[in-house]
Amino acid sequence: MEILLNKPRLAEIARRNGIDAFVATSPENVTYASGYWALSQWIRRGPQVHVLLPVKNLEASRVIAPSSLLDQFVDQEDVWIANVSRYGFFHVDKADQPLSRSDARLFDLFSQPDEKDAIGALVKALQKEGLDRATVAIDELGLMPGHWERLQQELPNAKLVPAMKLFREIRAVKTPQEIERLRRIATITEESVEAALKLARPGVTELEMSCAFHTKTVESNATPVLGCLGFGARSAMPNVYPSETKLKAGDVIRFDAGGRYKHYRADLARIAILGEPDNKIKTYHKALHNGVIAAFDAIRPGVRASEVFEVAMNATRKSGIPHYSRSHVGHGIGLDGYDMPDLIPGNDQIIEEGMVMCVETPYYEFGWCGLQVENTVVVRKDGVELLHREDGQLKVLA
Amino acid sequence: MEILLNKPRLAEIARRNGIDAFVATSPENVTYASGYWALSQWIRRGPQVHVLLPVKNLEASRVIAPSSLLDQFVDQEDVWIANVSRYGFFHVDKADQPLSRSDARLFDLFSQPDEKDAIGALVKALQKEGLDRATVAIDELGLMPGHWERLQQELPNAKLVPAMKLFREIRAVKTPQEIERLRRIATITEESVEAALKLARPGVTELEMSCAFHTKTVESNATPVLGCLGFGARSAMPNVYPSETKLKAGDVIRFDAGGRYKHYRADLARIAILGEPDNKIKTYHKALHNGVIAAFDAIRPGVRASEVFEVAMNATRKSGIPHYSRSHVGHGIGLDGYDMPDLIPGNDQIIEEGMVMCVETPYYEFGWCGLQVENTVVVRKDGVELLHREDGQLKVLA
Repeated sequence: MEILLNKPRLAEIARRNGIDAFVATSPENVTYASGYWALSQWIRRGPQVHVLLPVKNLEASRVIAPSSLLDQFVDQEDVWIANVSRYGFFHVDKADQPLSRSDARLFDLFSQPDEKDAIGALVKALQKEGLDRATVAIDELGLMPGHWERLQQELPNAKLVPAMKLFREIRAVKTPQEIERLRRIATITEESVEAALKLARPGVTELEMSCAFHTKTVESNATPVLGCLGFGARSAMPNVYPSETKLKAGDVIRFDAGGRYKHYRADLARIAILGEPDNKIKTYHKALHNGVIAAFDAIRPGVRASEVFEVAMNATRKSGIPHYSRSHVGHGIGLDGYDMPDLIPGNDQIIEEGMVMCVETPYYEFGWCGLQVENTVVVRKDGVELLHREDGQLKVLA
Repeated sequence: MEILLNKPRLAEIARRNGIDAFVATSPENVTYASGYWALSQWIRRGPQVHVLLPVKNLEASRVIAPSSLLDQFVDQEDVWIANVSRYGFFHVDKADQPLSRSDARLFDLFSQPDEKDAIGALVKALQKEGLDRATVAIDELGLMPGHWERLQQELPNAKLVPAMKLFREIRAVKTPQEIERLRRIATITEESVEAALKLARPGVTELEMSCAFHTKTVESNATPVLGCLGFGARSAMPNVYPSETKLKAGDVIRFDAGGRYKHYRADLARIAILGEPDNKIKTYHKALHNGVIAAFDAIRPGVRASEVFEVAMNATRKSGIPHYSRSHVGHGIGLDGYDMPDLIPGNDQIIEEGMVMCVETPYYEFGWCGLQVENTVVVRKDGVELLHREDGQLKVLA
């Protein structure tokens, strides 16, 4: 079992904000809080799965799930929470045979009462733990309109506060287990780019190359998520969606892509060119690369996120793109593609050891092309460690 | 361009419910309403993209999107809406070169004012169309807590009603273009099962077979979504997540899986067995298959959804599983994996021509195995048409 939740950080952020309990509701926070990956919630909008974490008594943590998803609760090895409330009718049969330990556990759970609906079950769970007069931080991201109001109505003496930002703050510092998953998916993504670039020759389409990219990801037991890939002038589109456009000699190929491995995300950019780059491409790419490397040099525990932004912008401007303009130069990454910290101007958040970040300097020039350097690093005591092999140099393809 | 939105049905449902305008907010409804697939919204929770559809003047329909996602709005061929409001800062550069038509369009859009935030832009768009005193149906599924209340506050004279169910009702009857996409992804899923089953031999793991399944899906330019796959007793878990469990002679292999192609979903079950099935497996599978075939015979325009449920249940019980119990025997499918109609007891919804449905009779017997028949059909004038090659017979592997 690998516990994803950073328990000491949860306790510290609870203390600092006066929170007695957290409730996770969005897929990322539910999986993070409990280790439970609840299928329906991940592939659709609407299904409600919650995790209650009483700060001073994590042993009493509780998952609230539809009866139809209890099999995953007993089968998944990363689930560390013992208590579950189930809601909704779901029928399963039992053979006249000895059951496996997890199947027997499932039948125990089915013998619990049906709580009918998720919000009602959550109210009951909070009452049971004596939290109905407490300060409860509720992740608003996974709730449906009306749920918040109903919770407040049924818990008139509780103080409900939004938890979305607090969960991002907790998730910002990764445990060693999380870092290894992020390293694995960053590496898979890098290898998937290499697999796709093997197809580079005049006439190959963006779609064919995209297919090779995702195939390599899937063959590595990861799931495709992000797959921006464009040739030539199309590479300037930030979210370029692969098309039937064919590669030509001299074209830039831009990837901004990454899959998901054991629930954790990657987000890397790689630039290749079919043939020799001209001076502008060389100069501009070098400037963007310098921007990211300068940020790497600046990142260490204790530095403000906004300082990293300034360093990257200045380095990029000084080394070849004087007009470089950008809203951010990176973001954290984890279960979500945009974890804290945001590397944006004015952000006073302090960089901490164990944060994992995508540092990036994209440049989109319509009518010409898009260039981008984006790498993933973990913050160590003295600086950064790259989570993959290459640092985003321009790839010149013969 | 393929318009996904069923415009006559939208008009009819608006008339019947007294709706002047619809607002889509969830990824499925945004793509359905406009043809626009807005990346951030599909891969994360929170990013707001909206589509306003004034019922009596669809030409004035409007997309509300972050500036960072406008490239997809101009590049995607299925977008039929001309008007867009953008919000948020995003910088792009322009070369001193002639722009492509879509790049030039993008720069026109960037020259529009920044509306700062999605809800504000939506309020303005409603006012501009004179809908601030109208009945506006708002898809509550994509909103964040507080958004609904803010809309009501800023539009005090508008009557806001929830649109989630109305959108499901509109989406329930598919256009020919939607049916072809659903046929394609059902076929890709069936072919992906075949590719995975080629690996069936003692010792292969669920994960290896799952990898072959998803690889075939990706190679067919589709995206993995659902991939339940289990061997032996594990196949009884409804949402079985592929593990390192190895296949043994005599094991049942259960797939309940399907990808996404051009945004449309598949959901099929297939059962194979490595070796000769015993009598119980044969009898039970045959009963489940009879249930689905009986439902097929019952489905035609004008029939109630609940009648289909009764027919499938009775046929399954009569032909070998007298204790068969089940909450539903199928559901619609489209951009979402659970479209209308729900084939559940008591559902008076009338089956219509053009509905596409997954009809299924799963049976989960813990300690033994899971068996399941699930096929996808489109409702034609006189009955059903299967959207794939096979109808879910038991596959006996040598």
